[in-house]
Amino acid sequence: MSHRENLTVYVSSFIEQLYQSGVKRAVISPGSRSTPLAYLLEAHPQIETHVNIDERSAAFYALGMAKASGAPVAIVCTSGTAAANYFPAVVEARYARVPLIVLTADRPHELRDNGAPQAIDQLNLYGKHAKWFYDMPLPESDMNVLQYTGRIAAKAAAKSLAAPMGPVHLNFPFREPLSPDLTMDKREAAFTSVFHAKKQLDEDQLSVLAQKVSQTEKGLIIAGPAEDGRAVDAILSLSEATGYPVLADPLSGLRTYMNDHDQVIECYDAFLRDDRMKDLLSADLVIRFGGMPVSKALTQFLKRNGGSQWLIDAGAEWRDPSSSATAYIESDEAVFASQLTAVISRKSDRAWLKQWISLNGNVEAEILHYISDAEDEGAAVGTLLQSLPDGAHIVAGNSMPIRDVDTCWIRGMNQFHLWANRGANGIDGVVSTALGLSSVKEGPIYLLIGDLSMFHDLNGLLVTKQYPNNLKIVIMNNNGGGIFSFLPQAAEPEHFETLFGTPPSLDFEHAAKLYEIDYKRCGSKSDFSHALTDLSPHARIFEVMTDRIENTDAHRGLWKKVAEAVHSE
Amino acid sequence: MSHRENLTVYVSSFIEQLYQSGVKRAVISPGSRSTPLAYLLEAHPQIETHVNIDERSAAFYALGMAKASGAPVAIVCTSGTAAANYFPAVVEARYARVPLIVLTADRPHELRDNGAPQAIDQLNLYGKHAKWFYDMPLPESDMNVLQYTGRIAAKAAAKSLAAPMGPVHLNFPFREPLSPDLTMDKREAAFTSVFHAKKQLDEDQLSVLAQKVSQTEKGLIIAGPAEDGRAVDAILSLSEATGYPVLADPLSGLRTYMNDHDQVIECYDAFLRDDRMKDLLSADLVIRFGGMPVSKALTQFLKRNGGSQWLIDAGAEWRDPSSSATAYIESDEAVFASQLTAVISRKSDRAWLKQWISLNGNVEAEILHYISDAEDEGAAVGTLLQSLPDGAHIVAGNSMPIRDVDTCWIRGMNQFHLWANRGANGIDGVVSTALGLSSVKEGPIYLLIGDLSMFHDLNGLLVTKQYPNNLKIVIMNNNGGGIFSFLPQAAEPEHFETLFGTPPSLDFEHAAKLYEIDYKRCGSKSDFSHALTDLSPHARIFEVMTDRIENTDAHRGLWKKVAEAVHSE
Repeated sequence: MSHRENLTVYVSSFIEQLYQSGVKRAVISPGSRSTPLAYLLEAHPQIETHVNIDERSAAFYALGMAKASGAPVAIVCTSGTAAANYFPAVVEARYARVPLIVLTADRPHELRDNGAPQAIDQLNLYGKHAKWFYDMPLPESDMNVLQYTGRIAAKAAAKSLAAPMGPVHLNFPFREPLSPDLTMDKREAAFTSVFHAKKQLDEDQLSVLAQKVSQTEKGLIIAGPAEDGRAVDAILSLSEATGYPVLADPLSGLRTYMNDHDQVIECYDAFLRDDRMKDLLSADLVIRFGGMPVSKALTQFLKRNGGSQWLIDAGAEWRDPSSSATAYIESDEAVFASQLTAVISRKSDRAWLKQWISLNGNVEAEILHYISDAEDEGAAVGTLLQSLPDGAHIVAGNSMPIRDVDTCWIRGMNQFHLWANRGANGIDGVVSTALGLSSVKEGPIYLLIGDLSMFHDLNGLLVTKQYPNNLKIVIMNNNGGGIFSFLPQAAEPEHFETLFGTPPSLDFEHAAKLYEIDYKRCGSKSDFSHALTDLSPHARIFEVMTDRIENTDAHRGLWKKVAEAVHSE
Repeated sequence: MSHRENLTVYVSSFIEQLYQSGVKRAVISPGSRSTPLAYLLEAHPQIETHVNIDERSAAFYALGMAKASGAPVAIVCTSGTAAANYFPAVVEARYARVPLIVLTADRPHELRDNGAPQAIDQLNLYGKHAKWFYDMPLPESDMNVLQYTGRIAAKAAAKSLAAPMGPVHLNFPFREPLSPDLTMDKREAAFTSVFHAKKQLDEDQLSVLAQKVSQTEKGLIIAGPAEDGRAVDAILSLSEATGYPVLADPLSGLRTYMNDHDQVIECYDAFLRDDRMKDLLSADLVIRFGGMPVSKALTQFLKRNGGSQWLIDAGAEWRDPSSSATAYIESDEAVFASQLTAVISRKSDRAWLKQWISLNGNVEAEILHYISDAEDEGAAVGTLLQSLPDGAHIVAGNSMPIRDVDTCWIRGMNQFHLWANRGANGIDGVVSTALGLSSVKEGPIYLLIGDLSMFHDLNGLLVTKQYPNNLKIVIMNNNGGGIFSFLPQAAEPEHFETLFGTPPSLDFEHAAKLYEIDYKRCGSKSDFSHALTDLSPHARIFEVMTDRIENTDAHRGLWKKVAEAVHSE
């Protein structure tokens, strides 16, 4: 076969096996060396391709798609620093456990490590942050090679999906000329299936743990971030059977269902700030699912709380920064919760649970007052949450937005779903992640983001010109790094504003014009509340002007009131 | 000493040694964990600090400063994906040989690899692309520790400056609280000096090479990219002594002086496109300095040309993608050229040199016609170059801008200096590189950039609000990836525009408003030419609207005319 035929058969067989292995979407950044992958993905009748020029944004866009679909998404770029721009999203995918298939085009061996233009060392480019790296062979259409590279495609998808899920990286050497023949029949190799089994404990292991539960009245379940929500039902059942309250991180998926489940506790961040409450509520057994919760108060509670602490993680990564777990349970989370529920007898004494529910209810009332009375950023976030329709999705930026959602998402609101990049908690790539999510999810979708984070990924907005979507973007503009005002460093006036406040003084209306997005400035909470009622179905930016000082003061006021409320009980 | 005193003495001693080792500038991105480094750099009386929010831009900004100053520049960021955003500039610095000192803040050991927030594995984060990585010890003020970490600072600077220059990475674990005490006396350790020696050949090695020169009439010198320009004088002297023409890449630094040196040949890219010319001009000895030239025609000429080919590179990286060198000379370039010049006798027969000069002169005339007659992007670039005052600096983006400068920068123009990111030839980070350069260089400075590359690093513009500068930005807006129109892929209409043209349809006037920069749209070459006469001393954007089809046609027209001119000779 000719060079062109070899190239076409090799790449299209690889892509077909990727598709058969569950990769239904690809995000392509323009470039020359990656032509074979880009053309043949674009030509594949079932794979949905999106073009995204800035590779940093492109990778986060794919991350959002992968989160929303639960399936691996491929990203394709040319050689050189293009591939290096993927790194932030690769790191996020690694820690947030999101399946990404990174496909980088490279020079063939004879143009490596000898100064060829746009050639960098791409082998193991992402180091330990890719779960797997493989340097592909040169295109050939020999059936042995096609069978083998088909296995590589299937293996890449399988590895990206194995617990803990994450990014894998394949590097393709391509010689010129680079254009494949789009008229050729493309399926050449047989295709491979993969069956993923889940880790589960055996009966003996389980009975040890069940015995501890049967002996323990004061137990707690902590449901940390786990955006796929796979374990939600099993955790609710376990809580029901044990009478243990579930402290539900906003990213656990559980808060969506709290209106029907009293045992879901969502206000712990507000009332566990006080050390007396930490002691009063100390538990003899903590069963922790998911990643580390957003709440720093909860982390401190976990560190202070003695007793037994079990950490369930199929990914076996011992995510335990306070080093306080007494047992690491390397089992599938949903399977474990179901197994445990099945072997314990339902507890009838609910005094402990009722204490938590009562306390939590009082704090809910304080937070409701705060949302309606305060005028700061947090109250605006509460207002947004109150306006969300059933089935809505909201993506929260890091730093203040996710914390304000943690505070203000309380019982009584409609059922919505929350997403955030909590793998490495970066302020980068959040716009693109939300846009990627919005390209997959039906229904209303919102992004809540601070001005620095919005600025960091402004480039992400370009795709709104190329692909229709209905993302509503709410920028909380406090002109700088609002979260830093809560740090001790804020007491150092000399360099604080230069190094931390970093006021960019950006008027995002110009950004909206650059990307041709509808824009609305909201000077106050009531402006914002009114603007939210206009839900025309296209991308829209709401810029809410807030104040860092007012924000710090109002938050501290809330925490004071909560402390008073819980102590008076 | 207290935690705070330890922290302060440790970090400030480290910073003082960095300063003593030649680090006069630092670029800081806001973050909490990096507080000790940020505050103490900011407080250092001699180090110039700049704040740049988006770490991707920040690192390229530092790259521009390091290029302009020839000294290492420090970059500082917090833990997590912040550090991953440095990666594209680290890769560029590695291949472009620019000294960067990457200082990342990290969690202390007890918060690593256990799911702590914003903690990622930062050890060897940049893999083989950092020349050196070191994980710093925890802050202590014991004199042994201070002496040791002072050595690490000196070593980091020394390693960044050793041939081939490049980035080094130090990772700092910091425990809370993070605020240093700015009132403390900071110098605690003795300071270290470093003497860098240069590689040079001995007399025996040199005499072998000198003999070859003495036997060879048809020799050529190729001066590739070497922005520091250190070897310029020595190369000119070698050329003068040997009678070998110097084919001077636009980034070699030699074109700046071509008005006084006939032997500098600058139009080779235009006339070496033709294979008959490649054969007619084949040389018996090629002496190559610097990186691979921008010109693809020259690369092909080098591959086709038999004969001896020497590659001089103190960095010893064998940058020879055509694998055609017959000798790798791992010596300092300037030293080698001077040594060789000293031991050879001046050649009197100049026929070969005159042939090149005559040919080149004819082509200069054709290019002048093109600049004045054509209306495409290349002619606009020529118009810009003709308008540059003596001593100006110009930064050229990759893809078309650098190639158009290569074509249009001919004898007779004023003496200006050219810069570009040719380590990995990325379109990313170019705006920030130019801004970093402009913060160091006095005098007029221009950025010539395409719309995709401008888009990629729009965030870089934010610093123009914080720090005064006089960069003039010329955007050649052909609405997409102009260079792809020159590729064979352009013949595939089905997916070409989606995957390669990628028209972003951006009106950069809105971006100018977002960053409060003066803006001028130029619909034609004469508009542009007129606009260039207004040289008010603040940042300004000129957007020149061009057309990809016209551009391809006009370039091909020029090459045809050049071919006719050289054949008729």
